[in-house]
Amino acid sequence: MRILIINGPNLNLLGVRDKDKYGSMTLGEINQKIIEEYPDIQFEFYNSNLEGDIISKIQQAGELFNALIINPGGYAHTSVAIKDALEECKLIKIEVHLSNLVKRESYRQVMLTAGSCDGYISGFKGKGYLAAVYLISTMFRFNNQ
Amino acid sequence: MRILIINGPNLNLLGVRDKDKYGSMTLGEINQKIIEEYPDIQFEFYNSNLEGDIISKIQQAGELFNALIINPGGYAHTSVAIKDALEECKLIKIEVHLSNLVKRESYRQVMLTAGSCDGYISGFKGKGYLAAVYLISTMFRFNNQ
Amino acid sequence: MRILIINGPNLNLLGVRDKDKYGSMTLGEINQKIIEEYPDIQFEFYNSNLEGDIISKIQQAGELFNALIINPGGYAHTSVAIKDALEECKLIKIEVHLSNLVKRESYRQVMLTAGSCDGYISGFKGKGYLAAVYLISTMFRFNNQ
Amino acid sequence: MRILIINGPNLNLLGVRDKDKYGSMTLGEINQKIIEEYPDIQFEFYNSNLEGDIISKIQQAGELFNALIINPGGYAHTSVAIKDALEECKLIKIEVHLSNLVKRESYRQVMLTAGSCDGYISGFKGKGYLAAVYLISTMFRFNNQ
Amino acid sequence: MRILIINGPNLNLLGVRDKDKYGSMTLGEINQKIIEEYPDIQFEFYNSNLEGDIISKIQQAGELFNALIINPGGYAHTSVAIKDALEECKLIKIEVHLSNLVKRESYRQVMLTAGSCDGYISGFKGKGYLAAVYLISTMFRFNNQ
Amino acid sequence: MRILIINGPNLNLLGVRDKDKYGSMTLGEINQKIIEEYPDIQFEFYNSNLEGDIISKIQQAGELFNALIINPGGYAHTSVAIKDALEECKLIKIEVHLSNLVKRESYRQVMLTAGSCDGYISGFKGKGYLAAVYLISTMFRFNNQ
Amino acid sequence: MRILIINGPNLNLLGVRDKDKYGSMTLGEINQKIIEEYPDIQFEFYNSNLEGDIISKIQQAGELFNALIINPGGYAHTSVAIKDALEECKLIKIEVHLSNLVKRESYRQVMLTAGSCDGYISGFKGKGYLAAVYLISTMFRFNNQ
Amino acid sequence: MRILIINGPNLNLLGVRDKDKYGSMTLGEINQKIIEEYPDIQFEFYNSNLEGDIISKIQQAGELFNALIINPGGYAHTSVAIKDALEECKLIKIEVHLSNLVKRESYRQVMLTAGSCDGYISGFKGKGYLAAVYLISTMFRFNNQ
Amino acid sequence: MRILIINGPNLNLLGVRDKDKYGSMTLGEINQKIIEEYPDIQFEFYNSNLEGDIISKIQQAGELFNALIINPGGYAHTSVAIKDALEECKLIKIEVHLSNLVKRESYRQVMLTAGSCDGYISGFKGKGYLAAVYLISTMFRFNNQ
Amino acid sequence: MRILIINGPNLNLLGVRDKDKYGSMTLGEINQKIIEEYPDIQFEFYNSNLEGDIISKIQQAGELFNALIINPGGYAHTSVAIKDALEECKLIKIEVHLSNLVKRESYRQVMLTAGSCDGYISGFKGKGYLAAVYLISTMFRFNNQ
Amino acid sequence: MRILIINGPNLNLLGVRDKDKYGSMTLGEINQKIIEEYPDIQFEFYNSNLEGDIISKIQQAGELFNALIINPGGYAHTSVAIKDALEECKLIKIEVHLSNLVKRESYRQVMLTAGSCDGYISGFKGKGYLAAVYLISTMFRFNNQ
Amino acid sequence: MRILIINGPNLNLLGVRDKDKYGSMTLGEINQKIIEEYPDIQFEFYNSNLEGDIISKIQQAGELFNALIINPGGYAHTSVAIKDALEECKLIKIEVHLSNLVKRESYRQVMLTAGSCDGYISGFKGKGYLAAVYLISTMFRFNNQ
Repeated sequence: MRILIINGPNLNLLGVRDKDKYGSMTLGEINQKIIEEYPDIQFEFYNSNLEGDIISKIQQAGELFNALIINPGGYAHTSVAIKDALEECKLIKIEVHLSNLVKRESYRQVMLTAGSCDGYISGFKGKGYLAAVYLISTMFRFNNQ
Repeated sequence: MRILIINGPNLNLLGVRDKDKYGSMTLGEINQKIIEEYPDIQFEFYNSNLEGDIISKIQQAGELFNALIINPGGYAHTSVAIKDALEECKLIKIEVHLSNLVKRESYRQVMLTAGSCDGYISGFKGKGYLAAVYLISTMFRFNNQ
Repeated sequence: MRILIINGPNLNLLGVRDKDKYGSMTLGEINQKIIEEYPDIQFEFYNSNLEGDIISKIQQAGELFNALIINPGGYAHTSVAIKDALEECKLIKIEVHLSNLVKRESYRQVMLTAGSCDGYISGFKGKGYLAAVYLISTMFRFNNQ
Repeated sequence: MRILIINGPNLNLLGVRDKDKYGSMTLGEINQKIIEEYPDIQFEFYNSNLEGDIISKIQQAGELFNALIINPGGYAHTSVAIKDALEECKLIKIEVHLSNLVKRESYRQVMLTAGSCDGYISGFKGKGYLAAVYLISTMFRFNNQ
Repeated sequence: MRILIINGPNLNLLGVRDKDKYGSMTLGEINQKIIEEYPDIQFEFYNSNLEGDIISKIQQAGELFNALIINPGGYAHTSVAIKDALEECKLIKIEVHLSNLVKRESYRQVMLTAGSCDGYISGFKGKGYLAAVYLISTMFRFNNQ
Repeated sequence: MRILIINGPNLNLLGVRDKDKYGSMTLGEINQKIIEEYPDIQFEFYNSNLEGDIISKIQQAGELFNALIINPGGYAHTSVAIKDALEECKLIKIEVHLSNLVKRESYRQVMLTAGSCDGYISGFKGKGYLAAVYLISTMFRFNNQ
Repeated sequence: MRILIINGPNLNLLGVRDKDKYGSMTLGEINQKIIEEYPDIQFEFYNSNLEGDIISKIQQAGELFNALIINPGGYAHTSVAIKDALEECKLIKIEVHLSNLVKRESYRQVMLTAGSCDGYISGFKGKGYLAAVYLISTMFRFNNQ
Repeated sequence: MRILIINGPNLNLLGVRDKDKYGSMTLGEINQKIIEEYPDIQFEFYNSNLEGDIISKIQQAGELFNALIINPGGYAHTSVAIKDALEECKLIKIEVHLSNLVKRESYRQVMLTAGSCDGYISGFKGKGYLAAVYLISTMFRFNNQ
Repeated sequence: MRILIINGPNLNLLGVRDKDKYGSMTLGEINQKIIEEYPDIQFEFYNSNLEGDIISKIQQAGELFNALIINPGGYAHTSVAIKDALEECKLIKIEVHLSNLVKRESYRQVMLTAGSCDGYISGFKGKGYLAAVYLISTMFRFNNQ
Repeated sequence: MRILIINGPNLNLLGVRDKDKYGSMTLGEINQKIIEEYPDIQFEFYNSNLEGDIISKIQQAGELFNALIINPGGYAHTSVAIKDALEECKLIKIEVHLSNLVKRESYRQVMLTAGSCDGYISGFKGKGYLAAVYLISTMFRFNNQ
Repeated sequence: MRILIINGPNLNLLGVRDKDKYGSMTLGEINQKIIEEYPDIQFEFYNSNLEGDIISKIQQAGELFNALIINPGGYAHTSVAIKDALEECKLIKIEVHLSNLVKRESYRQVMLTAGSCDGYISGFKGKGYLAAVYLISTMFRFNNQ
Repeated sequence: MRILIINGPNLNLLGVRDKDKYGSMTLGEINQKIIEEYPDIQFEFYNSNLEGDIISKIQQAGELFNALIINPGGYAHTSVAIKDALEECKLIKIEVHLSNLVKRESYRQVMLTAGSCDGYISGFKGKGYLAAVYLISTMFRFNNQ
């Protein structure tokens, strides 16, 4: 099984950025943890600050992966264009947010991109990615029943 | 480890209710699956249609469990009172929704109770509960790092 | 034919409560009138102030009745949970309001539960229940054409 | 007893227009059914696409009829002028809508004219008119108690 | 003189719950303080997490008490049904909130039930109940001038 | 103990102005009543129609009084500047409104100044001032526990 | 000087309709009064319930009159089309409303057509027309300074 | 007959301020014109930039004048306190605005004070005051019919 | 091929009305241009200020034409009734606006009727009609691919 | 004549993406069709997912082309920056949308960029581009009259 | 060069008031600093809590100063009247706010008065005044290019 | 001291773009002026139309500069992602806007990025950058007191 994990703007700063909200692990450490926990799955980790590059990556994902995990960062609340790209992509798609968005500013309550994914996970910091991988593997185990 | 799983109104109808949105497993089958997947954890399954009874259950949970998983059903969007009860409860708390709420009616976009939990999971039908248990066990494995 | 008539909170006060808005008949007198006008139909009258009990009653109605008439009182405007229960119930469902809601406070203009019924009747005091029964019997007479 | 039944714009298309929402009977068939069911009542059926003509008809109704049934179609949501005309008319007035408005577009949730009637009935297709006549006759039988 | 004091959901947690907002006295200690300060008045203390039970209690209060003090907790902001029950109750009615609601979340700025009381008191923790009793006794002393 | 009581615009008309809402006592009679009920407390009564003078009075209050009671009249809903002045003043501060604001016009539901007081009392006409004094004296008796 | 006075829907009912709001003079009596007060001015009185006819009348007015007084009734709040017609008409234009609109329902606070007139007068019943004629004659006396 | 004319903030600048909107006459010239046109009426002209002083003036007007004309300038849109003062004043009250408010900024569409007057006139520059005096004299001529 | 072109209120004023926004051609000149450019197509040009007449025309169009072009003028933003008539009409339907609506007043941003057409064209003055005819002929050429 | 055609994010997926909404032709086929229909015009086709690149392209267009056609995709509803770039560009500018935006999600009703174009066309799938070219050529033929 | 610096309500408390937001310098110290930094400019410092007095001061400034710096405090968000006064004043006008308003309460996001100034500076505490003086002197140096 | 000055989309057009709003100096001339006025400070000027590149630049700025001046252009109102990047950057940060945003379109009143800066300056065209540099140098002179 092959899974693409896309991280949007500012997620390269993880572990440095406000640790109460986002946890103390760097993006590299999170990725390492994912690989350790799921040694049988192949991962590609993609990280970009550019809205258009994320769109292009999603467009190309369809033929190369079984599933896609995306943390669109701030674009989750404003990007109709990423939402449209996800809508076209027919993989299993899970959106992950590190912090609990319901506790935060009102402009983070507008969720655009999540509506074009299968579901979303919010509030568990780095462990949210692990749960997303767990869900994908469970879906395949149970034939996405 | 002991986990309390609370299901609110209409969740007793699972497996009967609109299967596209909520999946085809009954609540009993989901509970059975949880027990099978996590044989080392003790679960109590609580289900009520009554807002006040759910509040009372949350109030009593603090001393008897390590964590709490709640699917408040329709009360997730309207109950300031359940939100207040969750706020007081100092366990790990995860809110689960079977369907992807962002895809649904606007009155389901108002999330009150999730803001008093650690995080929430939406859109993965019965497998959302499994992911919640997975997250709790991972938190304990990593000392909730 | 069997019809279940559910009355929500404060409707036990009918005939006492503001008579201009709600009429001068008590709930007992209305029920008596319904029985007299429709002697060939079997009625069960259920009245509760508890949101969760109304939900449970709706859940059980499916196998025992041909149709359901509900006056959810104040819950009509706030209860996503009763709305969900009605959505699942596959009987003919008619919502009745005694007063003309369009003439009243703005928070009574939000109609949640009526959207999960076949239709609704508002403003005819106790006679609204009679019209609901009349409509159900007409539907059966005309094969719900 | 004499009852005036006013149908607003597009209701001349009944039976042709979207049958799921509006039912399969034409306006002529509905009128026929009303006459058959209530042979002792005299009806005038008036149908116009013109807002101003409907206003003039309402203004003249006061001295010629005992009651008025109106389906203002799309004008129900936008016409302050029809609302004002109804306000002045001192007959019993019932507004009928064929479809369940709560299930439909948000611009149909704004109800202007219904607030100047005694009450309204929504969602029962052609049978809504029968229920309106039934209510009027019941009001007279019970002295509008 | 007899006064009924109703406390809604989560108020049984007083003295434990966030002490900055709600004060450090338990509900039992507050009740004790009320009795000590007003030894000539008879009190009944009622506490429930259930919306419907609170409604029933209000409905029965009319003949047994001279006045009613209510802290509806979270229901103050969402319950049309409790509001309707208070509207029907013809006693002196005072709503008490422990914290200063104007300083808190926006969903606590919507005040439904207070509009069906004589007045309300907000922000004085346990002492708010004392002030409510003081106001009632003053009203009787001055013949509710 | 010294308490400053500030009354804003139009409160000099009390006893003349709409008596149903505001009560029949004049401001002078209310003040007399306060002095009689609390002979051990020293009061200064200040009344002005000028927003800026009220601000200046609040600014000077800090060193001369133990507590402040304010009825800002119409300024309660519009004055960011009085709110800022109250914020700076470190006395016990209680806002009093004669009528029950929740029952009134929507522009009176915006409460700015009350958020910078300890709490507020609304709906008890002249007796609201007595309750405010009672609360202050109770706070001192109980060491503002 | 020639002035056209247009009255929209329901204004033919004046003197019959709610007299507290609209005054006790009929439209005929008001017109008579206008003629008596201003014997040197030629008036045409036009009255229609039809939005489109009012538009046509405005379109033709430009070459025949010096000024136009319009009471669009309910169309004042909803008719973009009458607003557009007034915009094109280069006469002096004054909008008159019999009742004080600021005191009335919120849907009467939306003023569309008045924005395409020189000004408007609201709240003086039949005398509002006299004031409009007075203003026009004053404008001509002072060369519309 | 005695009429008080109150002008609020910035109206002392008339004739200097934006002439397209407000006209080219100074306040002194307008007052002179009023006196010339209505030599039999006694006028007091009051002008202040201070909200509180305008309130005080309104409070004192009741016993000294037959009617009051007010142009509250910018306070028309923000002052609950002036509105309250007008509410208490039992004279004939007319609000005048020089410019056509419907054509201007959205914050000038909120009309607070006009709702406590008999009516209002907007858009006729200095001639609006003349029309207000004309209306008052007409009311007296016709016994305010 | 036969095309019906409907022009709503005030469009008879084209070429006179604000030329910057609407262009300098009269409606007659535009119609002439259409005929010249498309000599093989039969056109009927219909123009009315009356909402109800436009509805009737749309209702009759279905059997006589291949396509319909409509410029509803001000009714585009307010008429649920025209929208309903278009919904029922099964021809190709194109809405044309002369000016660029996005640049104009906010009440022209509400587009009701366009949602019941195939598409709409805005901002190209008289040439918008030519583009609409071009689109219809292209659809037929390409079998509406 | 030289025309630049800019397509924004996800438009490279045309012909694959939801065919009901967007049509079955690929972007290549549409471009081919444009060239065939208008052999005398020189086209440059530019396509990018990157907001900033689209801005740069617009900035450079001014000196190289006679007109610009843009389909900004999802950026049409969110990009103030593209809107500003279009504002500066002094070519003829036409915005094209493939689907009928009025029929779609509410966040697609906010049109930012179209307000900085001459006009826009929505709902005709690939043929919308043809109509845009047709309009440009017509403008040049008629000297943009 | 002569500059008038106006400080509105509560700014006399600077250095005492919340130091994190407003800085630790008193208004006197700030004024002293301004004089030291710009010894060649003549300053008048004016401070008032009264809205009307600030308006009067602005009205008189026109002939005596070259520029005006204003910190309207809480009036910045509510005073249409100060905004109108600034609009009339033809000096260079700069609004200064000590704290960063975007970080603060929502009622401070409404900026009325700043729209009638040349520009505004927010968030630099006492140094904001220095920057305003610097800007004015730069404008004069560069001939307000 | 080293200062980074970031200019977002369309600012490369300065001096060409609408000169009334943005001034007549080009970005190059402004930069030249900054260097001349502050010869002792080292500046890097960065300009990009790409949201993601601006984010990357901000992320890298922390270790190389003492302060950051940013004019995010249109991204100031829509970019949660740039806001997040600024939040993480611990330099002194000042946002500059050339035009007075309060005077402009409503979508420019939403200020996202400024809330993550120390403060902002709006309305002084190119001189706004000079004031920002002045403020930074003053902060260092006074030890950011």
